[in-house]
This record gives sequence, structure tokens and C-alpha cells, in this order.
Amino acid sequence: MNDKIFEACSKILPQGYISQCQGARNSVSNSIGELITKRRLPEHGWSDDLIETLLSELSTMDTNNFHGNVGVGEREGRIYSSLVRRRHFRLSHGIGRSGDITAIQPKAAGSSLLNNITNRLVLDSLRIAGATSCKSCFAVPMATGMALTLCMQTFRNSKPSAKYVIWLRIDQKSCFKSIATAGFESVVIERKLEGDQLVTDLLAIEETIERLGADSILCVMSTTSCFAPRAIDDIEGIAKLCDRYHISHLVNNAYGVQSSKCMHVIQQASRVGRLDAFVQSCDKNYMVPVGGAVIAGFDESLIEAISQTYPGRASAAPSIDMMITLLSFGASDFKNLLKERKEMFQYLLEKVKIVAEKYGERVLSTPSNPISIAVSLTREEMTPSQLTQIGSMLFTRNVSGLRVVTGNEEKTINGHTFTGFGAHYDAYPVCYFTVAAAIGIKRQDIDTFCVRLDKVLSKLYSNKPSCDNFL
Amino acid sequence: MNDKIFEACSKILPQGYISQCQGARNSVSNSIGELITKRRLPEHGWSDDLIETLLSELSTMDTNNFHGNVGVGEREGRIYSSLVRRRHFRLSHGIGRSGDITAIQPKAAGSSLLNNITNRLVLDSLRIAGATSCKSCFAVPMATGMALTLCMQTFRNSKPSAKYVIWLRIDQKSCFKSIATAGFESVVIERKLEGDQLVTDLLAIEETIERLGADSILCVMSTTSCFAPRAIDDIEGIAKLCDRYHISHLVNNAYGVQSSKCMHVIQQASRVGRLDAFVQSCDKNYMVPVGGAVIAGFDESLIEAISQTYPGRASAAPSIDMMITLLSFGASDFKNLLKERKEMFQYLLEKVKIVAEKYGERVLSTPSNPISIAVSLTREEMTPSQLTQIGSMLFTRNVSGLRVVTGNEEKTINGHTFTGFGAHYDAYPVCYFTVAAAIGIKRQDIDTFCVRLDKVLSKLYSNKPSCDNFL
Amino acid sequence: MNDKIFEACSKILPQGYISQCQGARNSVSNSIGELITKRRLPEHGWSDDLIETLLSELSTMDTNNFHGNVGVGEREGRIYSSLVRRRHFRLSHGIGRSGDITAIQPKAAGSSLLNNITNRLVLDSLRIAGATSCKSCFAVPMATGMALTLCMQTFRNSKPSAKYVIWLRIDQKSCFKSIATAGFESVVIERKLEGDQLVTDLLAIEETIERLGADSILCVMSTTSCFAPRAIDDIEGIAKLCDRYHISHLVNNAYGVQSSKCMHVIQQASRVGRLDAFVQSCDKNYMVPVGGAVIAGFDESLIEAISQTYPGRASAAPSIDMMITLLSFGASDFKNLLKERKEMFQYLLEKVKIVAEKYGERVLSTPSNPISIAVSLTREEMTPSQLTQIGSMLFTRNVSGLRVVTGNEEKTINGHTFTGFGAHYDAYPVCYFTVAAAIGIKRQDIDTFCVRLDKVLSKLYSNKPSCDNFL
Amino acid sequence: MNDKIFEACSKILPQGYISQCQGARNSVSNSIGELITKRRLPEHGWSDDLIETLLSELSTMDTNNFHGNVGVGEREGRIYSSLVRRRHFRLSHGIGRSGDITAIQPKAAGSSLLNNITNRLVLDSLRIAGATSCKSCFAVPMATGMALTLCMQTFRNSKPSAKYVIWLRIDQKSCFKSIATAGFESVVIERKLEGDQLVTDLLAIEETIERLGADSILCVMSTTSCFAPRAIDDIEGIAKLCDRYHISHLVNNAYGVQSSKCMHVIQQASRVGRLDAFVQSCDKNYMVPVGGAVIAGFDESLIEAISQTYPGRASAAPSIDMMITLLSFGASDFKNLLKERKEMFQYLLEKVKIVAEKYGERVLSTPSNPISIAVSLTREEMTPSQLTQIGSMLFTRNVSGLRVVTGNEEKTINGHTFTGFGAHYDAYPVCYFTVAAAIGIKRQDIDTFCVRLDKVLSKLYSNKPSCDNFL
Repeated sequence: MNDKIFEACSKILPQGYISQCQGARNSVSNSIGELITKRRLPEHGWSDDLIETLLSELSTMDTNNFHGNVGVGEREGRIYSSLVRRRHFRLSHGIGRSGDITAIQPKAAGSSLLNNITNRLVLDSLRIAGATSCKSCFAVPMATGMALTLCMQTFRNSKPSAKYVIWLRIDQKSCFKSIATAGFESVVIERKLEGDQLVTDLLAIEETIERLGADSILCVMSTTSCFAPRAIDDIEGIAKLCDRYHISHLVNNAYGVQSSKCMHVIQQASRVGRLDAFVQSCDKNYMVPVGGAVIAGFDESLIEAISQTYPGRASAAPSIDMMITLLSFGASDFKNLLKERKEMFQYLLEKVKIVAEKYGERVLSTPSNPISIAVSLTREEMTPSQLTQIGSMLFTRNVSGLRVVTGNEEKTINGHTFTGFGAHYDAYPVCYFTVAAAIGIKRQDIDTFCVRLDKVLSKLYSNKPSCDNFL
Repeated sequence: MNDKIFEACSKILPQGYISQCQGARNSVSNSIGELITKRRLPEHGWSDDLIETLLSELSTMDTNNFHGNVGVGEREGRIYSSLVRRRHFRLSHGIGRSGDITAIQPKAAGSSLLNNITNRLVLDSLRIAGATSCKSCFAVPMATGMALTLCMQTFRNSKPSAKYVIWLRIDQKSCFKSIATAGFESVVIERKLEGDQLVTDLLAIEETIERLGADSILCVMSTTSCFAPRAIDDIEGIAKLCDRYHISHLVNNAYGVQSSKCMHVIQQASRVGRLDAFVQSCDKNYMVPVGGAVIAGFDESLIEAISQTYPGRASAAPSIDMMITLLSFGASDFKNLLKERKEMFQYLLEKVKIVAEKYGERVLSTPSNPISIAVSLTREEMTPSQLTQIGSMLFTRNVSGLRVVTGNEEKTINGHTFTGFGAHYDAYPVCYFTVAAAIGIKRQDIDTFCVRLDKVLSKLYSNKPSCDNFL
Repeated sequence: MNDKIFEACSKILPQGYISQCQGARNSVSNSIGELITKRRLPEHGWSDDLIETLLSELSTMDTNNFHGNVGVGEREGRIYSSLVRRRHFRLSHGIGRSGDITAIQPKAAGSSLLNNITNRLVLDSLRIAGATSCKSCFAVPMATGMALTLCMQTFRNSKPSAKYVIWLRIDQKSCFKSIATAGFESVVIERKLEGDQLVTDLLAIEETIERLGADSILCVMSTTSCFAPRAIDDIEGIAKLCDRYHISHLVNNAYGVQSSKCMHVIQQASRVGRLDAFVQSCDKNYMVPVGGAVIAGFDESLIEAISQTYPGRASAAPSIDMMITLLSFGASDFKNLLKERKEMFQYLLEKVKIVAEKYGERVLSTPSNPISIAVSLTREEMTPSQLTQIGSMLFTRNVSGLRVVTGNEEKTINGHTFTGFGAHYDAYPVCYFTVAAAIGIKRQDIDTFCVRLDKVLSKLYSNKPSCDNFL
Repeated sequence: MNDKIFEACSKILPQGYISQCQGARNSVSNSIGELITKRRLPEHGWSDDLIETLLSELSTMDTNNFHGNVGVGEREGRIYSSLVRRRHFRLSHGIGRSGDITAIQPKAAGSSLLNNITNRLVLDSLRIAGATSCKSCFAVPMATGMALTLCMQTFRNSKPSAKYVIWLRIDQKSCFKSIATAGFESVVIERKLEGDQLVTDLLAIEETIERLGADSILCVMSTTSCFAPRAIDDIEGIAKLCDRYHISHLVNNAYGVQSSKCMHVIQQASRVGRLDAFVQSCDKNYMVPVGGAVIAGFDESLIEAISQTYPGRASAAPSIDMMITLLSFGASDFKNLLKERKEMFQYLLEKVKIVAEKYGERVLSTPSNPISIAVSLTREEMTPSQLTQIGSMLFTRNVSGLRVVTGNEEKTINGHTFTGFGAHYDAYPVCYFTVAAAIGIKRQDIDTFCVRLDKVLSKLYSNKPSCDNFL
């Protein structure tokens, strides 16, 4: 509806109504115009209708949707199924070009705009979350692990001689595998046990650098978000080391955007030392389906170099999901979600403590882990396999995500054998289970979980009676 | 609607109607049952409704959609936006696990089933298209280039000493970049000019192998689908060489599934020599949005190894698109589409020939290219930049995909400088433009294109008058 | 996307792409502008995307979708369910006002525009279908029968003394019931048997008028579209009578829009005599879901009076369906559909004739019925209830719509008893079944039907063997 | 997914996951089974996904969706546009048959089931809302006014001699017009002024009955929900009169379902006197788009008779909307909505009082109106047309629904001239405006309204300064 069309309407509708409608139409245009001009999260979340209008406008800008367009190339954005076309809002050209995943596509101005704006909205969200001086980022349709691989593949260009990646142990397969996939050898740095917590062994890192020689080391890969009792790495300390030894520093911040603590240490590290890039999962932090990661950093040209390493154009699906979700949030709701998560973490801690103590167990003291909680499992009469039943019993009771760690699993990945796999440590002194308060969890989820946990423990720990109404 | 529910209906509806409805309901169940049992393309395409019913059933099997499910992990498949949830049919867990992109996820039985079935449907389609003895394949949410990278990253495991990838020149950035991204050095083999065609120089390959030593060579990367006047590579010849020298052979079959010729040479090569894996784009062959590639091969365990190299789980979006589209096709429509494309290629050839000859130009003779056509541009009075205007003039007339190649561009990618970039050859004797008959092109598209081409040429070649009604 | 927004885009996209996009955007605006200006069927059908853009623009004009709107009335267009909102394209105010179903609503300029345009598109379609000088019409969310009632309720205003409606027998309940619902008494005029056809008895009508007195007669209700062997009424003859006696003439044209013959007689009648209004079903003629009727006529002020009789505003659903469908058609496809239907009627006639003759039956000769076909059922050894099995046997074989008429049913509706109900005649000489070639029927439907019919007849008429491959 | 299909899955998925999935699938089936068995509002609202599953199952039961169905009738439920098909969930046969709008359709078992269940859910909701002994009801795709007409058309059958409908004045066009449309003459009973309230004049009704004779009177039409200062009618008193004089009693309960007071008087009246049917709007009470009404009563056979008066089948759209919305509510949310509305009414009263008093105006005392509030407008220096500006000024400030009543409008409808139209009274002593707290209104709406109202009044009543922060 432009002015000419409104004029045509005036033969049907009274002028007064038309002015009112023009006002309403302008309000839509203004919202879209402001988004494209500022490329920042709107203060208040957008309605689905407004988001769909935006997507419709963007898709109108792609050649495959031009009326009368004829395609005589090998890739013309044709979509066979109307179901598929509809679910992608008619956007079919993906993002990026063979040269660069953030480049503008001539055939797809709308998709290009979408990609550009989305990356800026994500940047805005990272700053809001705590990485206030983050300079650049982009969403890439890959798992976190593959995104870490992409970063290392880029680092290779500036240090072709490097062979090793120093990796601070975290018992999660894909970040470890990402090193081998990138073609490097991992050097594993074990954790130090401090109280209940497993913390970064800075000394061991430095010794390793000295031993192997900085020139042979591509980067140090540290991790923020992780399962308790592992603590967030000492990102600042590592950053200082990396700076001193001229080694790249890559941070696996998988689900750390949701935690102000994780974001704060990243922000600080960028000030006091070296932090080249940090990578986070889209689904774990922004409540979108699995499929995307965000690669971010404090040096625009490095992030650009990473974006240029991706060979080919890529699925726009994760970017579309991110755009929709970030516009749905708005800045204010995003902040609220972060705040609520923090509160839910405290609530989970308190509630779980009550159940644990009822059965003579305790919440391990892991103040440096802002997302995950570990609870001891100390019944001597129970075998490890009996303990792991807690997880499966809860799973059949529709509780997903609780993990029992017995510390006696051995696992070989890419040639490296891990003792006590799952515990991030060869011999953690106690069995335990972990639970997390991730973004989007509700108070009622926690209540229901505790009731079910109580039932399961009461069944297994048969000498303690269940007390259904303790909560 | 199960039998118990139909019984409840019988208090409202006459029994006769209910039997009829049960029949209709069974017909739906039977279609779904047959799909899951056979995991092959149905003979006739499914309706959107049936496909949506299947997707709805599958999503019901994922924990995030369980009624009353509580998630206390760090990744629970929560989706914030209802727009996003809807467009992914409530499937949020992606595909694969940290260990393997084809693995079953405990939290997401439905997504796992979808992934498994989709890969089998794709396998069926590859066999129908001509790779009759293809053993295994999987769709991966990556560009073709990145998928090639993934293959090479896997090959590294069995030949850790390898440094080089022998690459048969094709002037397309992403497949060349994929080598550097994987951490290898490219050794470029130039083409031989035979008549108008640019063909594989087998001798040069062999000499290069001898010179560098087979042990230092990871693989040969050949290409089938390409722009004329480059011909399909001599895949059989290369396969024999690779077999003889124990070198992996990776085929870039980007948009070759749509051509029986491309698929035939792949099939033959697997019989007479060595062909480890061939990679194709989802969007270019199956008319889905950009975002996925299919990695396929004749040795199941190798393909499995590649799938295990991907570090992390991945977006299900391309797999969902592929499932929907393949079920929409059915075997019969897929065959028809392939047949029609072949006919359209002939039609395009004939029609373009008429226009070309009108302006004193000719279609280059490239019998070994079944998809792309090149037309000479020989006006001596025109500068290269005037010639490239043909492309932009057509683009503003809503013709996308025509490329003018002047042969005088120089380009440096990953440190290698290409002379005559775009022409796949340092000094191709003539300027030309290319057009392609890709899957989904319609007779009317070709007619419209030729009219517009005629207009543009008539404008540029001003001494020849336009003849609007020659077609 | 207005010019200001495109300007904002130019900081992200090259200017060349933006011009192209503006062209594409203008093409959308032009289509919408032309529709609103001309209010006629576009020559070529619109894509779903364009239709959705239009609906989105219209809904933006309704107050319930204004950003920041506050409603303090008793009816504010709130929609609780997002499923419902989505399916109605956010249009919630319905059509019309308490005074007039075609009136403009202050709160809902978009819905009002939609209603206005839709009615004009329908008018255009009626003219294309043959009522070339039709002046006015509107779609109303009512069954055909209820719409006939509405017309009669309006006629009452100009003839308050009238008691009777002269009704030309057609054995269909709702048009007969519509008279009683409107508060009038039916006077049934039986048909004349001419050959196989049941035709209008003009003499009987005139005698009835003379007998009752024209002043006591509200109108004559005639019918065009009907089941064979009933013929279209002699609309012209009736129109002349009505003109002469100053009696309103209401035509039940339920599914006659799809037949050029039905429309032609209506058009002619309006020239030579009196035809006040003709009523047609939306679903039967335009392939939309059941729910709407179109009331049309040759005198604008009368049609307006009818629209003002509806007390209250009404569902926009049928109007939305009609708008979508008519825009999907375009003028050219609508004409094609009408043409195809005519061809399919001939095809059905020929095919059914073959089956009928195989079993010693014949197609009744009903040249004045352009939609429905009747086939004799003459086996003397079969009882009526055995004959009606043909219908149910075909129904369980997924053939719907075939009706067996035995002529020995008696039925009382609103106090009137019909002998030989279903046959439109007290004593039709032969049993028969009817089938129709309605708009949207496909050649393959007819083929499949004939195969199944053959199987059923062969089973029932056991002395004649089935011949599966006769077609 | 039935057991056989799950068995097929077990070749792909571990058995443990399948059991879990079967549990999830059963939970879906159980919900649907319970709905069909009990036909009552579920305690908790259903998710959109579950509702869509139900609709998909129902549509599978209609012949137009049978795989391989062939239609040879004149109405086969074909839908041309996929947009239309999708928005109606493939349901195309509407509801009812020519004989009865609640009847079962052979071709459309699913639509019939939907219609049947919806009517039962609506019945449940009416009982929850307060009409605890309501026996039967059905939703009909008509405006409230047309539904009133349908009731009167049915009443005619049992009292063919009746000419008049006694109508208790309410200045709303469509309920008045409904009488003329039904073919009856209105006899208007004016209101009595008691304090600020306009109440029922029982004596006048009785005198009118005596004067005209009960035999000539079809029914009394009373109204519950209305604009202040009109009060709910004395439904009990009227019911007693109707009982005594054997006159039908029809209640216009347009938006009364949302008020426990309106529902209570209906319930009471059915106990102490005669109340044949009460009619309510779907959109005003259930937050669905305009288009449906609910006809309800305490005598099942009468309601059935009304449903049989509708000549023809009808749009299912309002029934689908009602089913979706009622299932979304669940019993608990529906109760909450009713409770919230009552609270919002109190809140609106308090807030408006503050603004009114600031400008020397007062909220009229209308304790018998539970939905609408009237505020005096007493500035002598302002002309009526200046006063009505309040409405338009607020409308341009995005406040809809406020009505200014000056009491000096004269209006003629169906031949009757109303003095002081809008005020329900010939000479209401004061000008005023009305606002309502209708279902779905939010606290923030009221706050925003009051701010805007204050601004407008401050502008008009220029001697009183605006005080932006008084709220």
C-alpha cells in the first residue's frame, strides 16, 4: 500500500478512514525502516505479523521471486514443494557467496540483507549479554564444534607452521573432535581440583607452551559454559598467557551467552589479554532449533577472515530463526530472559539442596559454575550401574537432561584415552549427577523435576521413605 | 484416531460412515508404514497433507514435544518463537550427535528417524539417477565446498602424511577453497583444449603424481557438472589412475545428479577404478533452498567415517526440505523431472543456436557437457567490458544466470593466481557466454530468454536489426 | 518497503541491486493498485504470495491490528487463538454493519475494502460466465436456501399483502424450505414430461396466477441448475409472465454459474421479461468450502435493498475464500475452467453411454440439462432397494455423488407431500441414476468412475460379465 | 503411528526410545479420545499442535480428502486454492444438510463430528458461564440479528396467527431489524428512568399484551447485555409474564455470556417463567472473528426445531473457530477469563471515575449493567457536535469503542422513528459517553485509555489543565 493505492482506495472508503490506515501502514514501515537503519534490537519485541511482513518484503527482493524472472544458470533458487517454499518464506538462495559467508549475493538482495541485519542483531545481543566491546560476529549454519574447526582453519593461515592446539579438558566430544577435524593435534591440559571444583591449571598451560614452543602451537582452546563441578576456565589468565606467547586464544562459549558471568570473563579477557574468537551455539542460548553457531570477536578483520574461510554459500535457516527470535525478544525481553534464568538457577540450587539433603547427599560447592549444579551420590551399597539408573528412571518419567557421572568410564576419542570420562578429571572423588538451569526453564519445571527426583531417589534409596508433600 | 476413538465416534456417527473413515485413516497409516518399512521413494508423490501428517507424527516422538516433559539439561529443544516452531514442524533437536551426524539421539527419536529415512530416500534417488550401485549417503547441512572439506578431513586419518590435493582446474571458487580450508595444498592441473572443449589431461595428472609421490597426495578432486566449454572430467580415467597409485578420488558432482551422463560416469568409475566419495548440492539438484549437500559413495564404512568426522549435531532444516521434496516427487515424478531436463537442454540448444546464428555467432561444440552451453562472442569492435554488458542488460531484464566470459580476468585465490579466470583455461581462444538448462527449467523460460537475448544482442550489435517475431 | 527504506538499504546493498528490488516491489504494488482501481478480475491469476501480501495489507487497515490500539467497546475484534488469527489473516471484524451487509465499517477499513472488491470480482465473474449485463451482486455467508429466504424477505417490503410463492417443483429440500422460512406459503407447479425431459409448465403457472390473483403472489421461484431428467426452467417464458403480471421473479441458479447455458437464459430473461434476482452457491461454482451464496441482479437498487435486509454484520470467511479463489483464477483461468467443464460434460456423456449400453441401459435424452446426466435402470428382476445399492456400493468404492432415483419415495416437507420424491415428478416412467460433470472434475475422475461403475453393474447385473479393459 | 508402524521403527531406533514415543503418541490419542467420548471442555487448554492434530484427523474423515475419491455429484467439496484449503484445514463440506444444520453429512463424517462436538463444547461453556441447566445449543454462521430472525421464523410454526413481536427498546439496529426481516411487526416498549438507569417497564408490557391480545403476539424480545445507562432487562419478570400469557420469550444475550450477571438472570428466568431461546454472539463472547451466533435454550426439542429451520448447509468456519478457541481455553482458562473481565470492569470503573471527576463529570450510577459504563458530559458551553468530537479524537488516537450519546438524534428504521436514538430513551436528561470492559481487555488497555481520555478532555475542556501523571 503506497500513496497511490491509498488514493485508489478513496473511491471506496471515506477519507477519514484512509488517513487512519495510512497511519497504521506508516507505523509498520517505520518499524522496518528503523530496523534497517539502526540494525539493532528493537526495544520491544515485534509481533509475529510484523516479522512476517518483514520476511515477505525481504523475499520480494530475491530474484527467484521476481515476477517474470527467467533463470538460465545452474542455481536459480527454484523450490519444488510449496510446503518448503512456505516454510522458508520463499527465501531460497541461502546466505553468502563462494567467497565469503557474509557477502552480498546479486541474485538475492533480500537474503543478503537478512543475513547482514541478523548478524548485527546478534552482535547487539552479545553486547547486551555482557561482551560490551565485541566488535563483530556472524551466525553460521554449523554446530559449535564445526564452527570451532572453522576458526582453527582460519588461524592456520597466519601460522602455517603450527601443529598443536592446547585444549583444556572438558569431557564433551565435539569440541575435542573439532581439533582433529581441523587437522591439528590436541594437547590435553588436565584440571586442578580445588575443593569440589575443577579449575584451570594455568601453570600446566605455560609449561606446555614452553615445552612445545609457541611457534608450534596454533591456539589455546578454553571453555566457559560447562557441567559442574568443572568451573568456567580462567579466561583472563589464559588471555594473558596467550598475549605473552603470541598464541591465538579460542573460547568455546557454547551456552555461555545466557550467563552474565561467562560473558563478563570474555569481555574482561579481551581487555587484559588476547582473545581471538569466541563461539556459541544458537540453540542453547537463543531457543532456536539446533543448527547454528555464532562466531564473535573483538577484531573485525579476524572475524571477516573466518567468514571468508567458509567455502560456499550456506543455509539461511539458522539466520532466519535467529532474526525471527531476536525480533520477537526485543532488547527488553532478552534482558528479562537472562535475568529470569539467573533467578531460576538460584531457585534450582535451593530446591535441589532440599531433596539432596533429605537423602543424605549434598550439592557440590561450585561457585564458579553459573549454569550447572552437581549433586553427590554417595551410597556405598550402590554400584555405578545402579546409580546411572537415576538418569534413565527420570527419563522414563519425562525428565530429560539429568546426567549421572560415575567417574569410572574410559573413552578413546581421536586416539586420546580419557580416564574418568564425563567427570573432566581422571579421578574425581565422588559420584554425582548434574542438572542445569538453562534459558527458558520455568519455576514449574523445577518444581516438577524435584518431585520426580524425590520419587526416584526414594525408590532407589529404599531405606529413606518418600515424602510427597515436602515441596 | 485409533480403534478406540472410532468406537467413541460411533455414538455420534452411523457405523457405515465410520467404516469408510477407518478405511481412509488406514490408507494414511499404510503410506507412512510402508515408508518407514521400505525407506524408499514412494512410486507416486505424496500430497502436502500426507507429508505434514508424517512430520507431525515424527515431531510427536521428540522429547521437547512430550506433554509434561521437564528439561534440566543445557540443551532441551526449547523454541521461543511460535513462528520458528511452526516452520520447523516442532522439530528442534537437529540431526546427529556429537559423535556422528547420522547417529540416533535419545531425546529426539523422531528427528533421528527423519534423518535416517531421508538419507535412504536420497540414496534411492541417487540410484534412480544413475549411480545404481551407490551404497550409502547422507545429507549434511553444508555447502558443497564445505562437504568436500569434510571428506578431505576424513581422508587425512588414513593418510596422515599427505600434503597435496590434485585439483583439476575448474574456475569456481568454493571447490578450490575447500582444499585450503581442509588444510591441504592444491596442485592445479590445467585442461587440454580439444576442439572447443576443455578436457581432462590424464597425462598431466599422472606426471604430477609421479613427481610429488603418491604418499604425499591425499586425493584427486575431479568435477563432473561444470560450465561449458569445460567438459565433464574423465572420471573413469582418473579412477583408474587413483586405483593404480592408491590415491583417494573425490568427485565434485555439484549439480550432476540431474544429468544421467554425470551419474553414469560416476557409476562406471566405481566399477573400473577408485572413487571414494562424490558430493552434490541439494539445492541445485533437488530444488530445495540452498543449504545442504549429499555425500555419497560406494563403500559404506567410508561414508560412515565421514559422517563421524562432523563434530557436533547439525541443522535438520536441509534434511526436512529433502524429505518433503523427495516425498512430493515420488519415484515417477523424479524420473519425469530428469527426463524433462534432458529435453529442455536439447530445446535450449536449438533455440539458442537460432539466435546465435542470427548475429553471426555460434554455439561452441561441447558434446561432453550435458547441462551448460557456451555461445561465442566474436565482434571485434567490442571491448570485453562491452561484452560483459550482455549479462547485466539481461539481468535488468529479469534474466538471471547468463555469464559472459572474456578470458582476460586474473584472480588470486588462496595464493594461487589464475589467468583467464572464468574460462577454466589460461587463454581460451574466444569470448563467450554460457547458459544452462537446469532441473525445473520450463519451455516458456527458454522462449522468454531467447526473446530477451535477441533484443539485447540486437541493441548491442547495432548493425543487425532485431526481429521480434523470429521465434 | 518504501523509498525511504530502500535508501536505508543502500548502506548495505549496492545501488544496482536496490533498483532491481524496487522494480520488483513496484510490480507487487502495481498489481495491488490495479486491482483496487479497476476492481476486476486480473487477466492472469495471482500467486499465493501476492494474494497473501494483499491480505496482509488489508488486515493492517483494521483497527484490531493497529499497533497500540486500545478497545473500550463491546466488540473490538480481539482474537484469542493464534491459530484462528492466522487462518483469518488477522481479519476479525467480518463484513457489513448492522444496517447493511455491504456497508463500510469504521473499525475495519481493510475488511470493508475486501468485501467491496470481492463483490466486484464476483460481478466480473458472473459477466464472464454469461450474465453480461448483470449490474450488481454480493456474496453473503449463507447457504443458497437462506439467501433465497433473504431475497423473499426483501420482496415482502414492496408487496406486504403477498402470501404465496409459486414454486416450480424441484426435489431439493432447501429451496422449498426457504419459502416457509421466509414466512410464505408455497404453491407447487408440477413439471410436464416431454420425451425423457421434465420441462416447465408455463400454462400451469399462468393459470395459478389467475386463480390466486397476482396481488397475493410474492414471486415465482424458478430453477436453472438441476438433476436430470429435470430440465432448466424456461426462464425466459417465466420472465415474460412475471413481467406481464407484475410478480417478482427469483431464480435459484444454485450451480448454474459454471454452465454457459444457465447463464445465457438468465441474461436473456433479463432482456425480454422480469428477473429480479438470481442466487448461486459459492462452493458449487467456485470451488470454495461450503458457506456462501451470491445474490445478483440487474437492478442495483434492488440488490442494495436485499443487502440492507440482513440484520447485523456477518462472517467474512466466504468473501475471503472468494477473493483468494477469484484472484487465483484470473479471468483467463476462470474461462478455461468453464470451457473444460463443458468438455468434461461431453466426455462423461460419451463414456457413461458406453457403460450403460453394455448393460442394456441408456442415457436419458435431456438436452436441456447441461450439467447432469441420467441413466436408466430397467432390470425388472431388481427391486428398488436393490437398485439403490448401486449408490452405496460405489460410495464404499470411493465414488461420491451418484444418486439412484427409484421414484417410489414419498416425502412431506413443511406440510406438503411429494410423490415420487427425488424424481421431480409424481410418476416418472423409469428408475435411473444421475451423475454430474461439475466444475473441477477431471478426465481421470471420469475414467476411474466408469471403471468402478462397470464393476458394480457387472456384479449386480450378474448375467453380464465385467470387462475390465473396455475403456 | 500405530503399533505396526512402531514395530517398523524398531529396525531403526532402539526399543527403549520407541516405548517412550508410544507413550507420547498415546497421550495425544487419549486427549482426542477423551474429547470425543465426553464432549466437554478439557480442564486445561490444548496446545495449538494438539488442536491441529485433531483437525487433521477430522479432515481425513471427509470424502474430499479420501485418497482416490472420485466425485460425480454437483457438490464434491473441491477446493481450488491451496491457500483456501489450508486455512480451512481441508474441511470443505460445511455443516448440516438441507434438512437440518446439525445433521450428519454422509460425505463429511469429519465435519459432522466437528459440528457435533463443537456444539457440545459451547453448551459446556454456557453452563460454566452460569446457564447451568441449559439443555441444548448450536452455533450458526450468522450474525446475532439473523439468528434472532431464525428463532422467530421457527416460533411462527407454532403460532401461525401471530403478527407482533414485543420489543423492549434498545437502540441497536440489527436486533430491531431482525423482527421485520422475519416478517413481523415490532411493538416498541419504552424504558422507565429510575435514577440514572433505564429499566424494564413490566407494566407497559403487560398492558400491551392485553391490548393486542396474546394470540397475535409471537414473542417478547428482551435484551441482557447493553450499553449503559440502559440496564439488563428484568428477564425474570418478563419470563413470568410470558409464561402467564403463553407467549414465547426470546432473549438477545448478544455479549452476555461474559457476564455472570446476564447468565444468572437467564438461568433464573428459565426456572421461574418462560424463556424459549437466548442468542449470543460468538465474536463478542469468545474472541473469535465476527460471523457466528449461538442459539441456546432449555428445551432440546425447540432448539432442534430451530436448527431444522435453516434451509441448507452452512459455513463451518465459525464452528471451527469456536472449536479451536474453546479447546485453547480449557475449562480453567475460560473461568479465568470471565473472572478477569469482572475485575477489569471494576478497574475501569475506578479509573474512569478519577478522570471524570477531574473534569467535573461523573460516572452515571448503573448498577444493573455489568459491562458498560456511562460518563456524563455536562459542559453547557459545548454543542452536541463538539461533544461527539471526543469519540473521533480518541479514534484518531487509537482508542476505539467509545461512543458519545447526545440524545438529540432522530432515526427511522423499518418505518419506526426513534427519538433520542442511541440513548434508548426519548429524552435522557444528560449527554454522556459509554465505554465497556469486554472479555479480553487488559489492565494496560484501561491505563492507556485513561491517559488518552484525559488528554482529549483536557484539550476540549480547555479551562482544566491536563495532568499527565495523575494516573
